[in-house]
Amino acid sequence: MNTTDTSLIDSALRTWKLNIDRANKFFTGLSEEQLQQEIAPGKNRLIYLWGHLTAVNDALIPLLGFGERRNPELDPAFLLNPDRSVQQTLSGKELQRIWEETNEFLWAEFSKLSPAEWIQKHTSVSQEDFQREPHRNRFTVLMSRTGHIGYHLGQAVLAERQ
Amino acid sequence: MNTTDTSLIDSALRTWKLNIDRANKFFTGLSEEQLQQEIAPGKNRLIYLWGHLTAVNDALIPLLGFGERRNPELDPAFLLNPDRSVQQTLSGKELQRIWEETNEFLWAEFSKLSPAEWIQKHTSVSQEDFQREPHRNRFTVLMSRTGHIGYHLGQAVLAERQ
Repeated sequence: MNTTDTSLIDSALRTWKLNIDRANKFFTGLSEEQLQQEIAPGKNRLIYLWGHLTAVNDALIPLLGFGERRNPELDPAFLLNPDRSVQQTLSGKELQRIWEETNEFLWAEFSKLSPAEWIQKHTSVSQEDFQREPHRNRFTVLMSRTGHIGYHLGQAVLAERQ
Repeated sequence: MNTTDTSLIDSALRTWKLNIDRANKFFTGLSEEQLQQEIAPGKNRLIYLWGHLTAVNDALIPLLGFGERRNPELDPAFLLNPDRSVQQTLSGKELQRIWEETNEFLWAEFSKLSPAEWIQKHTSVSQEDFQREPHRNRFTVLMSRTGHIGYHLGQAVLAERQ
């Protein structure tokens, strides 16, 4: 049975999933060498974008109240610093496993939320601020992070296939 | 008064607006020369991305049932063909005017829709297909086009400032 609010959430979850699927299709199966390619001369490497998206998705776990982060070790190399400034030793295969596990976990949690829970505050806004700014809720975070995946995918596709 | 569905729509409209504002901030004020820059060697020029986003937004007008297209003349140079394959004579100033007018028109129309209208079918899906695939609605289109703006903005920011 579809009510208006479940339809709206269904649309947003489909849009998230579409972006995850596009990223899967793009990154999965790239060789270690291909992952070292830059999206443009002097710009981020593909492995950095993939790791960055993985770290940001992992950080959604506490932000949306689903529990503790599972892979905070990604942050120094992929989130807190620019590409190449920190030595990273993760292979593409390992990154793929983390990426997939993170997304499966998120998807399972997303599916449990009711419409009322989607518009509850996320965990990094205070109760007081949320009273004044009720748009700082889980649903807005979902849409912002969906857009973030697309933003970097737009960049990733610029890398010349080798 | 906020119900769950109006909150969900408010989040989506804010996310759209945020992307429009980012695009405004990026493109507005670029010189004609800067607009000729490529996002990376051999890739699309900034003017092409901006024109492309404008044409896609213009095409939202009939897709969402708001009326006829206002600037279909953009399509040959910015939507139907790759960059540089069609002679285009539009200046950045003219493009900016069309971009702004299009977005103002869309915003006014978005604001009139009720939650029930957001989950109605868009105009390029048949009634029969929509019965089977109720996610092919206005709201899904809004989210997809919001993502499309971000996708190309991710590319635009790669252009080296000159």
